[in-house]
Amino acid sequence: MRAGRMLEVSSPTNSLVKVFRRALERGTTREGWLAVEGAFLVEEALSAPLAEVQSVLVARGASEKFQSLLERVPGSSEIAQVPDRLFERIAQTQSPQGIAALVEIPAYDLERAVKGAAPVVLVACGVQDPGNLGSMLRSALAFSASAVVTLEDTVSPWNPKAVRASAGAVFRVPIVSSLKPEPALAYLSRKVFVVAGQRSSPVSVAQADLSGPLAILIGREAAGLPPEVARHARLRLRIPIRHEVDSLNAAAAASIFLYEAARQRGFGY
Amino acid sequence: MRAGRMLEVSSPTNSLVKVFRRALERGTTREGWLAVEGAFLVEEALSAPLAEVQSVLVARGASEKFQSLLERVPGSSEIAQVPDRLFERIAQTQSPQGIAALVEIPAYDLERAVKGAAPVVLVACGVQDPGNLGSMLRSALAFSASAVVTLEDTVSPWNPKAVRASAGAVFRVPIVSSLKPEPALAYLSRKVFVVAGQRSSPVSVAQADLSGPLAILIGREAAGLPPEVARHARLRLRIPIRHEVDSLNAAAAASIFLYEAARQRGFGY
Repeated sequence: MRAGRMLEVSSPTNSLVKVFRRALERGTTREGWLAVEGAFLVEEALSAPLAEVQSVLVARGASEKFQSLLERVPGSSEIAQVPDRLFERIAQTQSPQGIAALVEIPAYDLERAVKGAAPVVLVACGVQDPGNLGSMLRSALAFSASAVVTLEDTVSPWNPKAVRASAGAVFRVPIVSSLKPEPALAYLSRKVFVVAGQRSSPVSVAQADLSGPLAILIGREAAGLPPEVARHARLRLRIPIRHEVDSLNAAAAASIFLYEAARQRGFGY
Repeated sequence: MRAGRMLEVSSPTNSLVKVFRRALERGTTREGWLAVEGAFLVEEALSAPLAEVQSVLVARGASEKFQSLLERVPGSSEIAQVPDRLFERIAQTQSPQGIAALVEIPAYDLERAVKGAAPVVLVACGVQDPGNLGSMLRSALAFSASAVVTLEDTVSPWNPKAVRASAGAVFRVPIVSSLKPEPALAYLSRKVFVVAGQRSSPVSVAQADLSGPLAILIGREAAGLPPEVARHARLRLRIPIRHEVDSLNAAAAASIFLYEAARQRGFGY
């Protein structure tokens, strides 16, 4: 690391410290930059082409350990070093590792989400549990979905629990978030084949042709899809489960839809 | 409900109140009975053939609302009514619904788990997150697994978060818990075809024949399967995911294995 690159900060009222504190509490800064903690997520942000690390905060006692990580921070970004006790006061995790970052994720839109020969878009329609949404992001990336769309009554993908559960996928899969349901679904149904899970459908997910341009609607954990959302689906599909079971976990259902679409496309086989 | 059936209890030092309090904190009583809160889980316990409701605790202000549920409690079980404020002190949920139960789940063993023509046993080998284990139980039930086995370094299936995430599956899918890895895996590999996920395997999960007697090993979230566990697998299988993704969420991976085994068996198609 270039000498003089690292700012020394020790005052809790320093403006960057205040920005980090608020952002780690809320998940994002006012500009919408994502605040993340821990070596794993900072490393993911540094390696992901979609993400840009804007600022890094490191605890003095941890800066040697994270030297190689800090060397990968772009020259235009700031790195601030704070006393360990100040870092601990700002951190939101139970055992702070001593490193945090503010990460800009360029905005993405629906038009780009459906580009390409056979895009697969996962649409979270009201998913409330951040762990479930994070796990859906992780599966979407794993099965090469083109984008994840969230409707406006869905938990934020920048929720710290969602970010952790995504295992870094939040930096790698394009996300279009908090869209108004009606125009977003109308647009998607003009561009791609929209499918939705439905317990009672006569057609199972393995019987349907999922190899073309596709959007998969996944509903709220217990309630499923509201009718005004479900009506945009051209086809309702059943994941075959035992009759006495109401539903699968939302993330499990999303993963199976994504797996099945990938399997039919011969992806990775 | 028969007159006089309901015990009136108002002292916090009453022995049943003390048993409920401790059990709701820890997840189980000393006898190993499961403590659950809320109408959904009590109802699931009352309907599930594998579970036996031994005691019910109801808040006075909620007993009318839960009348039909209380009428389904077996005659040999006790029902105690307590003042609302005492219930709130005992409850572990943030907005207590006013009903809780102690549920006996008969012990199950490995020998019964592998019975039948083509059993499918899901084996959780070190899964630490209770939400993931609960979601695995839910998918195991949904896809008609014969049993879920947990090895001894795995989170307890009776952990309150696991029970909630299982959405009642904990009462419906046979569970054999906390087994020593070596003898359990040796037994399973004598009786059924043991498979395990492996990122780098040349064989994908859809290419393998999963239609016979089967056990599926699912490892710890980040670390995967330790070698001493993985060596018991006759076949390692890859879920085809993008090369830059390390792994799927453990519950998502388990759900895909279970879905694929069910699909190959023609289950529900």
